[in-house]
Amino acid sequence: MEFTVAELSEHFGLSYEGEGTHKITHTCGLEGTDPHGISYVENPQWAKKALHSAVQTFVCHERIELPGKTRIFAPYPDMTIVEITQLLHPQKTYEPNIDPSFRQGQDCDLGEGLTIGPHVVIGDRTRIGSRSILLAGTVIGDDCVIGDDCFFHPNVTVRDDTQIGHRVVVNSGAVLGAEGYGFVTHQGKHHKIPQIGYVVIEDDVEIGACNTIDRGRFGITRIARGTKTDNLVHVGHNVEIGEDSLIVGMVGFAGSTKTGHHLVMGGQSMMSGHLNIGNGVTVSAKSLLAKNVGDGGRYSGIPARPHREWLKAHGWLYRLQEVFDFMKKKKQRKE
Amino acid sequence: MEFTVAELSEHFGLSYEGEGTHKITHTCGLEGTDPHGISYVENPQWAKKALHSAVQTFVCHERIELPGKTRIFAPYPDMTIVEITQLLHPQKTYEPNIDPSFRQGQDCDLGEGLTIGPHVVIGDRTRIGSRSILLAGTVIGDDCVIGDDCFFHPNVTVRDDTQIGHRVVVNSGAVLGAEGYGFVTHQGKHHKIPQIGYVVIEDDVEIGACNTIDRGRFGITRIARGTKTDNLVHVGHNVEIGEDSLIVGMVGFAGSTKTGHHLVMGGQSMMSGHLNIGNGVTVSAKSLLAKNVGDGGRYSGIPARPHREWLKAHGWLYRLQEVFDFMKKKKQRKE
Amino acid sequence: MEFTVAELSEHFGLSYEGEGTHKITHTCGLEGTDPHGISYVENPQWAKKALHSAVQTFVCHERIELPGKTRIFAPYPDMTIVEITQLLHPQKTYEPNIDPSFRQGQDCDLGEGLTIGPHVVIGDRTRIGSRSILLAGTVIGDDCVIGDDCFFHPNVTVRDDTQIGHRVVVNSGAVLGAEGYGFVTHQGKHHKIPQIGYVVIEDDVEIGACNTIDRGRFGITRIARGTKTDNLVHVGHNVEIGEDSLIVGMVGFAGSTKTGHHLVMGGQSMMSGHLNIGNGVTVSAKSLLAKNVGDGGRYSGIPARPHREWLKAHGWLYRLQEVFDFMKKKKQRKE
Repeated sequence: MEFTVAELSEHFGLSYEGEGTHKITHTCGLEGTDPHGISYVENPQWAKKALHSAVQTFVCHERIELPGKTRIFAPYPDMTIVEITQLLHPQKTYEPNIDPSFRQGQDCDLGEGLTIGPHVVIGDRTRIGSRSILLAGTVIGDDCVIGDDCFFHPNVTVRDDTQIGHRVVVNSGAVLGAEGYGFVTHQGKHHKIPQIGYVVIEDDVEIGACNTIDRGRFGITRIARGTKTDNLVHVGHNVEIGEDSLIVGMVGFAGSTKTGHHLVMGGQSMMSGHLNIGNGVTVSAKSLLAKNVGDGGRYSGIPARPHREWLKAHGWLYRLQEVFDFMKKKKQRKE
Repeated sequence: MEFTVAELSEHFGLSYEGEGTHKITHTCGLEGTDPHGISYVENPQWAKKALHSAVQTFVCHERIELPGKTRIFAPYPDMTIVEITQLLHPQKTYEPNIDPSFRQGQDCDLGEGLTIGPHVVIGDRTRIGSRSILLAGTVIGDDCVIGDDCFFHPNVTVRDDTQIGHRVVVNSGAVLGAEGYGFVTHQGKHHKIPQIGYVVIEDDVEIGACNTIDRGRFGITRIARGTKTDNLVHVGHNVEIGEDSLIVGMVGFAGSTKTGHHLVMGGQSMMSGHLNIGNGVTVSAKSLLAKNVGDGGRYSGIPARPHREWLKAHGWLYRLQEVFDFMKKKKQRKE
Repeated sequence: MEFTVAELSEHFGLSYEGEGTHKITHTCGLEGTDPHGISYVENPQWAKKALHSAVQTFVCHERIELPGKTRIFAPYPDMTIVEITQLLHPQKTYEPNIDPSFRQGQDCDLGEGLTIGPHVVIGDRTRIGSRSILLAGTVIGDDCVIGDDCFFHPNVTVRDDTQIGHRVVVNSGAVLGAEGYGFVTHQGKHHKIPQIGYVVIEDDVEIGACNTIDRGRFGITRIARGTKTDNLVHVGHNVEIGEDSLIVGMVGFAGSTKTGHHLVMGGQSMMSGHLNIGNGVTVSAKSLLAKNVGDGGRYSGIPARPHREWLKAHGWLYRLQEVFDFMKKKKQRKE
């Protein structure tokens, strides 16, 4: 796939300034090394890097100056570069096909146009919508419901009773609906609490590689519409994560916590169990949010406090030399 | 499955107060929305929530007051609700059956009444006890020993030489017996130390999804009887975790550490390598226990200190404004 | 396999002092319980333990005194014990064999002497070098290149376009080339940025169990030659980890960070995204390196500072009682 700058601009209804006949073959980062790549510039900091890049063509706002480079003007350069990428690098398509090694249980209900790879297994009474793709080695349990246009990468595991919406992506190694971690301790021994709930993954959710999302003890564990999880995320039983949230790599949720929409969890952060969290909350990388908070705000530290408080306290921490020196001097003077 | 309150009480030899003819169909949490559910109340805090619940019937101590609700009296409400759950929601049973796609190596020894799902593989000389269940995609290596009544969820991996006791549960994605992380660095290059030990999982252990439990370098890595691990737990080579321990999600153990029984590790906590830890030790969420400690005690922080010390220090940390203000005032006065 | 102390010493061209006729059957740790084991002593601290060990024979420097024990003298005892282990416990060998259940796509190119276990799948146009081993359940995508003498443990997933060098080991549950975590947020919704890059794993890399190494957004994610990762490590898109690095368990790398060679990341540590890190840098366990640093140095804390600064600050933190007591006294005096 190959376009000139002029063709590309016209295709998206955008204007440009620079070499309209220059050929564009691929999208790339600012560090790209091929002049036929196209990248984008979000802000003046990026512009400095762009000027020194081998890349010749950038999507940006009109107010971004890039002397010597070709600019395609777009109100949302990041959205436009996504669209250009989709055009130049069309997503791989899968022919509808059911591998002969596919094993299904009794009374399953399969939609049209499915792609099912080798050694895929689905259990009894499981329903799968149309055009979904299940790649090799994926195992779906009994009584599951999977929507249309879902994409299961290889070696995913979905346990019994899981309900998955439309256009859901699940990366390899993820485990949805594992037994929740619930035990009653009686006379020093731990007795399993039957985990009779299930997992609900709503529409347009994307689940990262090696996520573990446990079934509810009673009731459900829910990942709400539009939420995206990165790799190695753990979601305990009966957690409910609100819509359009971003859960970065290696984040953990202890059981029964409910969050609002547009939650952002930084890398390796964690939420304690049984919390109620408002909308639009951000938890910094490595932090532990351990109490209920309302809408908005960023929280940092272990346990987490409002970000500014944490920032101040940690600034002081590294200035304690002054305090101990001062105290020493005062004490010496007294002697 | 359906019982009246009176029938349920009689079945467990308990007394009740309230509506004996009310029908109970399922167990649920305090937030249950169906009056035919049954839940339980552990303490007066829960009682407040119970009063506002749609649920009508609760297992609790006689001393818990729940005006307008039906109470079934039990000395250990949490144990009783587990037993009621087992009665109302009987665990799924698996017919003994060996899928034709099952692949076994040479000289294997299989017990009676096994359930083996599609695409399961076991290696040479591996022995499996009676009534164990291995669901689809699970791969067991050579020379393993697996006891009776074990349950392997789909897509578990068990490497060569692993020894697993009776009634062990292993959730999906778990990897038992991977190569330990051991290298000798010589002239800047890292040389693998052959990991010739193996993993021992004792009776009644439950292993969470996507756990990684490495084989010993020399000798064994052991998870002792009755211990339960949550998801995404990492256990390094030659670690030995004592009996009846609770290892919560995303916990890591560096190599060669030995712990006593009834260890409790909070979420995302960690233990350094080569430690000796007493019985009944608790490590708080997010903390790093980095030195030997005796029996009992709770440890918090990075590195962990006795919990009260940590609590005090972190209280002070957020009061440092006072100290810097005081110091500033003193210095100004002097000028 | 069995040697006398004299035979073993002669085999490696080493001298010994003690019982040359004593039989050696296996290598073990200092805590070994069998007198026919052989272990090694690195330093005087280990010597104390060795003296109380049931083990009779140790590899060590000449300057290490072990009265009553037999010593084999070696300049690098840790390397020598690795070589002795390789001799006494030869690695399992695999006969070249391709299981009939193996499924390959179109236009694949397979080298000689491969061992391919049950239910292994490789996609279209994928090339595999000679003598590589792919155990049961491993799924390799389309357009991958895998070198000679690689070892894929069971249930590994490699996604499309991944390039893997020679002598690479990948432990079970690892996922190479999953979709990177990249979204553009527009009017409150998150739109997937097509991840059109790929993963490069260079020669002699070892990847731990349940690692997740994401494909590049544009360009590559690279693990350079000789680097070894422990279990449950997460590497975000476009990260490049330098040669001969040691990445311990549960470490995370946010996207686009580039590191030099001989990086050491402690357990559960993390690196922020978009960093440039020099050679020979060490990050302590549990720490978060969040800014660019040059060559060398050890960094600790959240966010990380030079290790000594962190150590000092945390020492003061636990001495704040003194400060608050002092301040209280001063204030009281004034009243």
